[in-house]
Amino acid sequence: MRNINEDTITQAVIGSLDKCENPRLKQVMTSLVQHLHAFARDVQLTEDEWAKAISFLTEVGHITDDKRQEFILLSDTLGLSMLVTTQNNKKPANCTEATVFGPFFVDGAPVYQNGDDIANGASGAPCYFKGQVRGTNGEPIANAWLDVWQSDEDGFYDVQSSVARIAGETEFRARGKLQTDDQGFFNFRSILAEAYPIPHDGPVGRMLNAIGRHPWRPAHLHFMIQAPGYETLITHVFREGDQYLDSDVVFGVRSSLIVDWVPHEPGITPDGKVLDVPWFTLDYDFVLNPIASKP
Amino acid sequence: MRNINEDTITQAVIGSLDKCENPRLKQVMTSLVQHLHAFARDVQLTEDEWAKAISFLTEVGHITDDKRQEFILLSDTLGLSMLVTTQNNKKPANCTEATVFGPFFVDGAPVYQNGDDIANGASGAPCYFKGQVRGTNGEPIANAWLDVWQSDEDGFYDVQSSVARIAGETEFRARGKLQTDDQGFFNFRSILAEAYPIPHDGPVGRMLNAIGRHPWRPAHLHFMIQAPGYETLITHVFREGDQYLDSDVVFGVRSSLIVDWVPHEPGITPDGKVLDVPWFTLDYDFVLNPIASKP
Repeated sequence: MRNINEDTITQAVIGSLDKCENPRLKQVMTSLVQHLHAFARDVQLTEDEWAKAISFLTEVGHITDDKRQEFILLSDTLGLSMLVTTQNNKKPANCTEATVFGPFFVDGAPVYQNGDDIANGASGAPCYFKGQVRGTNGEPIANAWLDVWQSDEDGFYDVQSSVARIAGETEFRARGKLQTDDQGFFNFRSILAEAYPIPHDGPVGRMLNAIGRHPWRPAHLHFMIQAPGYETLITHVFREGDQYLDSDVVFGVRSSLIVDWVPHEPGITPDGKVLDVPWFTLDYDFVLNPIASKP
Repeated sequence: MRNINEDTITQAVIGSLDKCENPRLKQVMTSLVQHLHAFARDVQLTEDEWAKAISFLTEVGHITDDKRQEFILLSDTLGLSMLVTTQNNKKPANCTEATVFGPFFVDGAPVYQNGDDIANGASGAPCYFKGQVRGTNGEPIANAWLDVWQSDEDGFYDVQSSVARIAGETEFRARGKLQTDDQGFFNFRSILAEAYPIPHDGPVGRMLNAIGRHPWRPAHLHFMIQAPGYETLITHVFREGDQYLDSDVVFGVRSSLIVDWVPHEPGITPDGKVLDVPWFTLDYDFVLNPIASKP
């Protein structure tokens, strides 16, 4: 440790972990140091670039608060979130695939009944969703909890609303929890999902601009589905035809999650009401993985 | 991009850099993504560990302000800072070696004359420093600027003082700038350097504790030396005999920078004054690298 130089530094740092009593933490930190140093060596990182990286991370930290998580955006846009999601959610082929969680989930969303309108005033074309939650053997899963959340037609989630931010609390819109019935079925009304840019007025947005990437995500609806005896499923349903399906800024698209959102002329809707504007329907079933079958 | 999975994600992210118009940025980001993903694959990073990493980085960001730079501490304690320093400061063998900059440099420190006491009230045993700044052919470097900074006997730099923080400004102590004379010589009085722990009441301190490492740095004095025609030298002088020379928390020790700080009984000091407490002397010369000879 008295002769630290370019060649000895990595082993010196790894050696300093000798007294780490948590074997998993030691493994993770050892690998982190090896890859961090290998990166700096590979590109021969300069002192000026290092200083810019420190400033960038500082900005990411300072813009992050309880409503905005710029580190998750950074992880998402570098594909790390999707990599971690995929390697931790290996499932049998007939299960619904997982995708990224994203930064806009909120715990404690309001509970709705099947058939309710969860939009709660969020702007967008009406959309009627229905489907079934099943296990891998086709068994219906009764009383599964679905968390649903999505942005409005302007691309904003309720938690991003300036009104909510000023008031210091969130008025939940286009966000809710509901349970499947005794045959595993669910249905609710919300709004049509639209493509939107991730928040790009901060350091991650400037990074994307500097590396020639757009900040858009294809239209999607978020689901988290939980039921006893099954692995929790966190996923999206994407909208077929969206122009950003091939360039999702967070790399979250999986073919099996792309679905037709069917347009309808004004008229009688699935809940028996009459709408004088166009509306949409979306049918999608989810298949959960029993915990026992996890590889 | 529609079939993102564990195997395809890395190439998808690298492919997204196609439109990056800055070749160096493209190279750095490509390598960063490769190593970041390789790390996550190597350790099979779990979703819970990923979430803890996001929380950790968020805490690092939130404790960082204009007086405390926790991201630099993180880089220092993971050996990244020293790696970047060494790979960017390759010099001929007879040059003074560089080491880490650290987070406590302040631009605009007060200017002193040779012979002045730069301690300005900082607590510690008096210490008289002298030396010469030369080039690689032995030529004295006149009018070179030396920035000097150090902690007090309690291990705190002036910028860490709670008084300075409350007032919103720094009273410079044990910190100053001075110039070599026409023969390249400098001398000043300050205080004896003592070992100190880096700030460890934040997330980096908790990380060190979790991985079984102490937060201590061996006693040292910081120098940044600048002269036209020469590469700027950023380095420390370490104190021989310090118990942390073999386990510097930021991996900054180089054998050539360890020096005897000679103790003296109370009596007449180099500036002709009489001290009734023990005092120290330190002699150290610096050799700068001419810019033309950079490899």
